[in-house]
Amino acid sequence: MMKNENRWVIQTKKIVRYEIIGQRDLFNIGNTEILYPNKLEHNHRFVVVDENVNSEYGQKIQRYFEHHGIVSRFCIVESGEEHKTITQYFRIANELENFPIHRRDEPIIAIGGGVLTDVAAFVAGTYRRGVPHLKIPTTLMGYVDAAIGIKNGINFNEHKNRLGGFEPPIKVFLDRGFLRSLPKRHILNGAAEIMKIGLIKDEELFKKLEICGHACIDDHFQNEVGQELLDLAISDMLEELEPNLYEDELARKVDFGHTFSYGLETRHETHLLHGEAVLLDILLSVQISKLRGYLQNSDAERVMRLVNNLGYKLDYSLLETNLLFESLNERVYHRNGFQRVPLPNGIGNCQFVNDISKEEIDSARVELSHHREFDYA
Amino acid sequence: MMKNENRWVIQTKKIVRYEIIGQRDLFNIGNTEILYPNKLEHNHRFVVVDENVNSEYGQKIQRYFEHHGIVSRFCIVESGEEHKTITQYFRIANELENFPIHRRDEPIIAIGGGVLTDVAAFVAGTYRRGVPHLKIPTTLMGYVDAAIGIKNGINFNEHKNRLGGFEPPIKVFLDRGFLRSLPKRHILNGAAEIMKIGLIKDEELFKKLEICGHACIDDHFQNEVGQELLDLAISDMLEELEPNLYEDELARKVDFGHTFSYGLETRHETHLLHGEAVLLDILLSVQISKLRGYLQNSDAERVMRLVNNLGYKLDYSLLETNLLFESLNERVYHRNGFQRVPLPNGIGNCQFVNDISKEEIDSARVELSHHREFDYA
Repeated sequence: MMKNENRWVIQTKKIVRYEIIGQRDLFNIGNTEILYPNKLEHNHRFVVVDENVNSEYGQKIQRYFEHHGIVSRFCIVESGEEHKTITQYFRIANELENFPIHRRDEPIIAIGGGVLTDVAAFVAGTYRRGVPHLKIPTTLMGYVDAAIGIKNGINFNEHKNRLGGFEPPIKVFLDRGFLRSLPKRHILNGAAEIMKIGLIKDEELFKKLEICGHACIDDHFQNEVGQELLDLAISDMLEELEPNLYEDELARKVDFGHTFSYGLETRHETHLLHGEAVLLDILLSVQISKLRGYLQNSDAERVMRLVNNLGYKLDYSLLETNLLFESLNERVYHRNGFQRVPLPNGIGNCQFVNDISKEEIDSARVELSHHREFDYA
Repeated sequence: MMKNENRWVIQTKKIVRYEIIGQRDLFNIGNTEILYPNKLEHNHRFVVVDENVNSEYGQKIQRYFEHHGIVSRFCIVESGEEHKTITQYFRIANELENFPIHRRDEPIIAIGGGVLTDVAAFVAGTYRRGVPHLKIPTTLMGYVDAAIGIKNGINFNEHKNRLGGFEPPIKVFLDRGFLRSLPKRHILNGAAEIMKIGLIKDEELFKKLEICGHACIDDHFQNEVGQELLDLAISDMLEELEPNLYEDELARKVDFGHTFSYGLETRHETHLLHGEAVLLDILLSVQISKLRGYLQNSDAERVMRLVNNLGYKLDYSLLETNLLFESLNERVYHRNGFQRVPLPNGIGNCQFVNDISKEEIDSARVELSHHREFDYA
């Protein structure tokens, strides 16, 4: 602390560290890492799970904790974007009130999709000014995106993630066994984030998607190649996240696909998944890049072919120019007065722009609407 | 980022830095530091003030912003512990929704007592996952305690600060002119925190309180000596806070007086101020220290004499053993399984204990009840 005349300067460094651990058959009795910090005197665990996870894995998870002498309380919540609400937050916080935990060594365990881990992590981050949490994603969106970062949040006043925080988990456990029973639509949902990172940052990943993306999706990433693809996507994501965990830099490659999608998701919450909105944003952005000459026609075609090849069916009619422009303008507040929109500059590279106009959005929208699935069949 | 087989380790350091600035006549047109970051393109300010501050200083503050070309929106809220609620949080968050601000360079400005700055800072810390804020305390409790740290929060389910976070302000402005019009009871309220830090950490401060505390309180800390006393108390507090801003260490000297007070405040929210509850806790703790032999009888008497001399009138009948013991047990969850109660060990020194029993609390309570004001008249 420095004191000089009538002013004090407070300075410190907060150490942030967490681990992401790939592990098959996570709740096998032999796996003890989930028991962290594994001390006899701290044996209470508040477990937040969604209904689907609970009906499929609930008994196994309970047996696991029982075997290890853990007193667990399950808080079972509804899944889906429409439950990313303050109501859900209070539902979890109130159940937690009835199951007191030690502030530091009895972490909350969140098991579910991105919505669940986001809401549960927000509770963890604000309960007693922060109690630790572990995240176990059970959807592909959680696995490659939501669960591996430190952002949490809830929707508020029809704004996505308007309330929330940055709260590093202690550990994240990745078990792609959970993906086996996911509906295909949810596999595609998460794959949009893989495509995002390939297109904006890593041509190798993009090429792998072209070669084996279809097969991996078909098989819910259960084979070796699927594991490699997921690992690469995660490493790419973390390379972007780690040096900028708290978003000190607001021009972020990982925001690719997250400018126009914001408005789309808000408007179409009940029938458009996050990854679907992101993919629509990506395709619009690709057209903007093409029209600006950042992407060659042939590269833009590669993107369109990949999207078709992976099995997406997208409804371009959702792309209304006014909605997209409003969404961009909302993001300008979020990005402190500038658009800072990442656009692909060649496949695997990125350029940030601040001058996208409504007219440009409209031209890109029209350009995109000329594409038809059968063009790539 | 380290990747090793099936695990990634994410590591970073978050730099935390903020300034506390003493300044007289804060909203004098000539003071430009409040305009931070003072850029033309970021000229919106959301200002949270309490009703009292607004009626006394509102016009001057508005003129100040107008003069400097700032578009300000005042959010006027009720003051007092009973408004440290989720309702107040949403009241502020909803008004903020109608006055969009840039995420980084249009800080929220919180002007008021500890309750107001705690709630407003919680909104700031969770709105868009955190927007910056400035704090301007207008009560002595805010000036020497609430506003100079990074903790924020609201009460929830009858638990004090059950929801909240750690969110460093950008700057804190201290203008003791605000103390001039405070009711005497609120001056005494804040002075309890000054006494706390002196007794547990700094005998010099304690001695100064003995010598000139009464006069300083009488004159609302408006003279030179008052300034010195405040500066010393703040420096002492910051010495404790800075190396442990996020409470990695749970045994904290500044928690002196904050173990039994927790239950007292909760039970008697409407008629007991925070500092009054803290002082009751301090006096009980002093008796425990005395009974344990950590404090000589004469030192315990010094404390009692000072309390009387400063003008406190305390109602010892609020000290019910069951309530106090429950409060201690609640704090055990908060302190991760141990009591970690700081007790004075001689005046100006501290010892942490983990073995306070209900019987010991009761003995200390009885011991304290033998003291009567007139003993020190």
